Amino acid sequence: VASKSSEETPRLRGILERAAKLICANGYEATSMQQIADACGLTKAGLYHHITTKESLLMAIMTYGMDLFEERVLTPANAVADPMERLKVTMARNLDLVTDETSKSVTIILHEDHSLTGDAQREINARKKKYVRFLEDAFKAAIERGQVREVDPTLAAFSMLGTMLWTYKWYRPGGAMNPEKLSAGMIDMFFRGVLPS
Amino acid sequence: VASKSSEETPRLRGILERAAKLICANGYEATSMQQIADACGLTKAGLYHHITTKESLLMAIMTYGMDLFEERVLTPANAVADPMERLKVTMARNLDLVTDETSKSVTIILHEDHSLTGDAQREINARKKKYVRFLEDAFKAAIERGQVREVDPTLAAFSMLGTMLWTYKWYRPGGAMNPEKLSAGMIDMFFRGVLPS
Repeated sequence: VASKSSEETPRLRGILERAAKLICANGYEATSMQQIADACGLTKAGLYHHITTKESLLMAIMTYGMDLFEERVLTPANAVADPMERLKVTMARNLDLVTDETSKSVTIILHEDHSLTGDAQREINARKKKYVRFLEDAFKAAIERGQVREVDPTLAAFSMLGTMLWTYKWYRPGGAMNPEKLSAGMIDMFFRGVLPS
Repeated sequence: VASKSSEETPRLRGILERAAKLICANGYEATSMQQIADACGLTKAGLYHHITTKESLLMAIMTYGMDLFEERVLTPANAVADPMERLKVTMARNLDLVTDETSKSVTIILHEDHSLTGDAQREINARKKKYVRFLEDAFKAAIERGQVREVDPTLAAFSMLGTMLWTYKWYRPGGAMNPEKLSAGMIDMFFRGVLPS
């Protein structure tokens, strides 16, 4: 079973990334351990050396995705003292992650309602909730300082999350929309709205 | 096989709603025709009288979800002449649908990347794209009239879609957030932004 912190080895990371791609394309249930082994150039026995069950594989992918997200978004954003600046850094960094082809599959899987159960599900949900609380707290602090008007912090957090994470559903790298334009445009629209000033 | 227009009979609608609930809870692959038959109080032979294959069932659910969406959102919004008013009516009606417990499962399935293939997939995708075009056109018209500032209409369309449709992921009926407050707050934030005026 993969570790619960960011200690994945490069070999294991490669397996998780390939497995995530297959699961994104074909669904979790429809993807067999044999197909994953084939995609990794491993025998099934070789794959089971790294991963003991299909559910532990899914948990390892989600843990890896969460680690990546925290390393690239939550930790650096948390270090920004000014709440308004913190919200903008969060949005820019999360959009960077969403439009990054390499990390795409492992992070997409976090937002699909896959078949984790019991403790594994609770652990991933707790890490997702931490992000929602982080956003709510940043909005509350920004409202207190008069940087944001009196909106509902929970609704603001979920509006921001929806705007950013829906991008997984439609954005294709190399398409008509370039990632810098997407990020700048979404951040501007989220904060300023769409009405003429 | 179910019809492709809104001609579902009440009996078939009941089957589709129950099947959608099971699929939302357990995933498409993990849900068997036997479980669906059980949930409908039918024998498997009785279920196959209404639905010939599992994929045709999924297509019938998506068609039903699209019919509901067009009837409750797209058609009434299309009838509104003023582009700004049209955008607001669209958002209010789509959020109504999202927070409505009865239609929840059949409409959620539209936004999950399920296993439709070939013509069925193309048909559902074409109906989804029609909605994106409708929003883009409304933004373009609102920009032309000076009701909306010079934003990218595609980005505005997907920001609005993300804000609304992400609600499926977190909103629970009977929870702390009531649907009227949610709808009013999201519409206000989307158009006016969150900065102090």
